[in-house]
Amino acid sequence: MFTKKIDHIGIAVKDASARLSLYEGFLGLKDVHIEELPSRGIRVYMIKIGESKIELLEPMNEQSEINKFLETKGEGIHHIAFTVEGINQAVELAKKNGLQPLSDSPKPGAGGTTVLFLHPKTTGGVLIELVEGSH
Amino acid sequence: MFTKKIDHIGIAVKDASARLSLYEGFLGLKDVHIEELPSRGIRVYMIKIGESKIELLEPMNEQSEINKFLETKGEGIHHIAFTVEGINQAVELAKKNGLQPLSDSPKPGAGGTTVLFLHPKTTGGVLIELVEGSH
Repeated sequence: MFTKKIDHIGIAVKDASARLSLYEGFLGLKDVHIEELPSRGIRVYMIKIGESKIELLEPMNEQSEINKFLETKGEGIHHIAFTVEGINQAVELAKKNGLQPLSDSPKPGAGGTTVLFLHPKTTGGVLIELVEGSH
Repeated sequence: MFTKKIDHIGIAVKDASARLSLYEGFLGLKDVHIEELPSRGIRVYMIKIGESKIELLEPMNEQSEINKFLETKGEGIHHIAFTVEGINQAVELAKKNGLQPLSDSPKPGAGGTTVLFLHPKTTGGVLIELVEGSH
């Protein structure tokens, strides 16, 4: 598999407005794109930094898919995403390297991308997302 | 403060050789630089990815500074480092934004850099390292 960059770092937050003083005010990042995903109960703040992005994941309601993480682990880093080429070979290649994909095949992601997650139990405690295609 | 990129993502590992199947074998990253820091009890694997790096932090002995993290939280993401300009103003600017630096002033880091850490209690659960200067 070929990886050329970190696509984004996903960070679970309770209240994104309380964190923008860090990313916008202190670090000076200005390119912030906000998107609501009601079916997953999350509001996403995509903050561009160089060739990568910071992705703040904020719950929209009590059914939000990010709530379990916030309740058990608290705010913090949720996953790392790598931009890859060859994601259709990723499931087979992952298994050969002792890594467990979280689905049987890559799935459609945001903005026309294709994504696959790897179970943190097999990666050294890091939830890893593979992303192929343009946002 | 001006931030232009993610410098690196620091990841605590018990045994780096067990993780290189992910970063080298599966993701195909080939530029790995290993450095031992006996005074801190850590062996560092710097793996280049695009404009950033993955930094695996492995304990060298029982006194390693990474052991407490591994014992309490287990393997996983330890910190995110941002490349910045203007680190000498960072302490004052951090306090203005409600962020708590872990030292009174920036300190010398590896490879001629200057670094400052921010307390995760004030950043939303993320240990943040600011890095200025070349590696």
